[in-house]
Amino acid sequence: MKKIVIIGGGFAGAYAARALERTLRRRRGDVEILLYCRENYTVFQPLLPEVISGTIGLTDVVTPLRRLLKRTHVHVREIESIDVQNKTVRVAAGFKPHAHVESYDHLIIAPGTVTDFRGLPGLPEHALPFKNLADALELRSRVIRALEEADVESDDPELRRQLLTFVVAGGGFSGVEVVAELNDFVRHVATLYRRIDPREIRVVLVHAQDRILPEMKPQLGAFAQKILRKRGVELMLGYRLHAATGESALLSGPDGVVSVPTKTLVSTIPASPHPLIDSLPLPKTKNGRLLVDGTLRVKDHDDIWALGDCASVPARDGSPCPPTAQHATRQAQLVAQNVAALLGGGGMAALRTFDFKGLGKMGSLGRRNAVAEIFGLSISGCLAWFLWRTIYLAKIPGWGRRLKVASAWTLDLFLEPELVELRLGGAGGAIHEHFEPGQRVFSEGELGDRVYILLSGRAEVLRKCPNGGGGEQVLALLGPGECFGEMALLESAPRNASIRCVDPMTVLSIPKREFGLLAANVPGLRASFEQVTARRLAQGVAQ
Amino acid sequence: MKKIVIIGGGFAGAYAARALERTLRRRRGDVEILLYCRENYTVFQPLLPEVISGTIGLTDVVTPLRRLLKRTHVHVREIESIDVQNKTVRVAAGFKPHAHVESYDHLIIAPGTVTDFRGLPGLPEHALPFKNLADALELRSRVIRALEEADVESDDPELRRQLLTFVVAGGGFSGVEVVAELNDFVRHVATLYRRIDPREIRVVLVHAQDRILPEMKPQLGAFAQKILRKRGVELMLGYRLHAATGESALLSGPDGVVSVPTKTLVSTIPASPHPLIDSLPLPKTKNGRLLVDGTLRVKDHDDIWALGDCASVPARDGSPCPPTAQHATRQAQLVAQNVAALLGGGGMAALRTFDFKGLGKMGSLGRRNAVAEIFGLSISGCLAWFLWRTIYLAKIPGWGRRLKVASAWTLDLFLEPELVELRLGGAGGAIHEHFEPGQRVFSEGELGDRVYILLSGRAEVLRKCPNGGGGEQVLALLGPGECFGEMALLESAPRNASIRCVDPMTVLSIPKREFGLLAANVPGLRASFEQVTARRLAQGVAQ
Repeated sequence: MKKIVIIGGGFAGAYAARALERTLRRRRGDVEILLYCRENYTVFQPLLPEVISGTIGLTDVVTPLRRLLKRTHVHVREIESIDVQNKTVRVAAGFKPHAHVESYDHLIIAPGTVTDFRGLPGLPEHALPFKNLADALELRSRVIRALEEADVESDDPELRRQLLTFVVAGGGFSGVEVVAELNDFVRHVATLYRRIDPREIRVVLVHAQDRILPEMKPQLGAFAQKILRKRGVELMLGYRLHAATGESALLSGPDGVVSVPTKTLVSTIPASPHPLIDSLPLPKTKNGRLLVDGTLRVKDHDDIWALGDCASVPARDGSPCPPTAQHATRQAQLVAQNVAALLGGGGMAALRTFDFKGLGKMGSLGRRNAVAEIFGLSISGCLAWFLWRTIYLAKIPGWGRRLKVASAWTLDLFLEPELVELRLGGAGGAIHEHFEPGQRVFSEGELGDRVYILLSGRAEVLRKCPNGGGGEQVLALLGPGECFGEMALLESAPRNASIRCVDPMTVLSIPKREFGLLAANVPGLRASFEQVTARRLAQGVAQ
Repeated sequence: MKKIVIIGGGFAGAYAARALERTLRRRRGDVEILLYCRENYTVFQPLLPEVISGTIGLTDVVTPLRRLLKRTHVHVREIESIDVQNKTVRVAAGFKPHAHVESYDHLIIAPGTVTDFRGLPGLPEHALPFKNLADALELRSRVIRALEEADVESDDPELRRQLLTFVVAGGGFSGVEVVAELNDFVRHVATLYRRIDPREIRVVLVHAQDRILPEMKPQLGAFAQKILRKRGVELMLGYRLHAATGESALLSGPDGVVSVPTKTLVSTIPASPHPLIDSLPLPKTKNGRLLVDGTLRVKDHDDIWALGDCASVPARDGSPCPPTAQHATRQAQLVAQNVAALLGGGGMAALRTFDFKGLGKMGSLGRRNAVAEIFGLSISGCLAWFLWRTIYLAKIPGWGRRLKVASAWTLDLFLEPELVELRLGGAGGAIHEHFEPGQRVFSEGELGDRVYILLSGRAEVLRKCPNGGGGEQVLALLGPGECFGEMALLESAPRNASIRCVDPMTVLSIPKREFGLLAANVPGLRASFEQVTARRLAQGVAQ
């Protein structure tokens, strides 16, 4: 019995399993295919932005793997590590926390890429990636939440500016499609909010180069810019997102650093191969992708294959293939043929080489507009949009789903977008937050809803001068390891001081409910906070 | 300027606002309507079970309030308290934690009911209510998660039994519709899981009385029972859900207590008026509903009105109205007329009295089957199901939504249900868990993924006898305030002992990630756990 283990349920992994099912259909008794993936569905990236407006049913944007793969064992579990010496993978635990090790005869690695915010201050805490369904739903919820709050908070102009500014970083296909859909959606539904003036809304696209869609011909990039600008998207070209807080995006550009106030920040860049690949003792390119030869075998390994966005696959001219679905599905086809050839005893001579040039590129610009490059032709506008929908509809796996998406798109032509807020996620735990100099963590007089522990950076404690006049005096300076904000929780009173960031700082922020649960039951915790409180009360600097 | 404040965005509250908009359309300049609600949509309860199978688009089951109400200020905020003396309501904080107080001239109270698990051990921690969209989505996710896990855990029969048993408590309309939809969905999609045998699946409906649907005529209840049983639902009549753990539902019945192993427990009962009403100094019935007269005024208050499920509204014969949408919408109409009459200076004499008998009752039994009582006629089967869909389609507010639901229902006739798992909710914090005697919290050898603090009850620490033979010895007894499970986290080693519940116990359960974050940064916490560990190591009883 031979075992083929596939890691990843994206287009590369899922289509490899499907191609193997077909190629090996006569050997069902002696070959087993196992696929490990994080979610039980495969995401078709170009359709994901439609989740923001809810045009297509939320579950129709993706394809359940079990509908696609009838003879593969699909395991919705993450892989923790790969042991290439012993030819095993270690599978993460499920409900029962026990380790699980699976052996393989052939390993197909295709976990794709992740949006990698490491090294960018505040981005892991405050920026949203846009890779899977949960990201898209989270973005949709945040946008609607921001509109709802802006409608209530009619007398706080600063907060309104943060709530009504939406920032997308990355001007490639993904970023452009997200910003186009987001802009259409926000501007459309905002008319339903009685206290939101459409002129207050800012939708910003940040891109480091001097034109968007660098993958396409210049005239198509220019067309896309014209359309986006016409629809109210602000383009910040030559700017790079380098840090974020809960209230702003910090962009470095030609004139130094600009801070854009926002509570909704999406970043589609930078992409790195899946973390699983980092730790593998296999040859990689500089940017961390697995080096494979034209047959998709990882160099010097006859039983390990890699494809999709996590691999650097040489195209006919030797340059690496771009990370697109059309390449991934064709690589999947090839890897299945090659694995089958080896299993059939054909030897190395039976292996075929990847040889696909790409059919074209398309990018949606939202409401009835798109750009496309097909067989060397450049198309833009309504025709490109029609092509975009038609071609992608054909690419969706399964007739049932195609029918659902087609009917949703038809209704969308004359119905309004939806604004139901799906508020999900249960009790929140402790999180990290990032602050930049000058920013306030909280202000005197606010209700205390969180406790903070300073992990790095510095902050100052301020209190309004007792003689009035609006001035503030600095009571203390806080450094790493110190906590603040605990008073208001222990006493259920408003904050009696403000905290302002001095040096860029990261804090551990613990919600009231969580802190209450722990403080009531962990003896050391309560004692430790009570000591701090007593000391501060004695010094008169409690917050 | 007169201000009318409405609390609640269900059918009662939302339709009251809509009726007021119409009735007072000539007084737009001098009357302001404010509606406070927890979600930005109104839920039509009878359609909610369809979220489980995903037949209707997830956001089409509910109606966004802003589409319904064009001239009302909709505030998606909870109300924390009502001050009837000063005629104000206190509004919960949003992003900025500051208190907000709003005054009113007329107050319309319609927050509905909540599923009230107080006093039922383990239910608040382990049972799911089924009231709003988030509940329905959570149930759907849990069901799919259970199937995915059962497919992986093929060699743990006990865990499989828990995963593949689905329990619904409450045999009224809501419970019956949920169990019917759940049963259809699970049995349909389970065929896609290669390692799940349909005979392993149990779907159980628990009901305290001797027949389900007590609101309907006996023959319709009997018909519903027959259909559900035919489709594989197990009916446990005469049983009452009285406790739950993370692995079982405890039912007390004619022969004592029965424990049903399950990881998916939904309870549609018991319902209590919204907690906001508890604290109000207003006259209430024994079960906590607000007492109003026929004009919907709360007794002895000329400016406070109550309607919907939170109020006890006398019907024509003096008995209280049932909690249905048809009554709520008609009460909403009346309250709008009466408030308008008072505002118009008509005085008490102008008030009209509630006089509506109810048109009938309907309950869906899932796949093309239902029961209905309309104008005294009893109808069951496919015709009742057709009526159910037609009537409820007509009740959905707005043509766009009706069209979407109708098209989804049409496609559903020949397409398969969806099994995309929407996994949502970010980092989890500390939670409560409940255990019953004999149950294990964790077993020796498992990986440590949580730390526990015992809040009430008792547990014993067990270790396998070193001489083999499979026996275990009791190392220690733990009581309230003690922690366990910390060793495996501090050392990243497997559990070196098991913990078994002796007396029913509630624990605070802190996930690994959360504990790591806190232990690394809160000085008192780490020290306190290290002391415990050192002491236990010295005694040789560490876990």
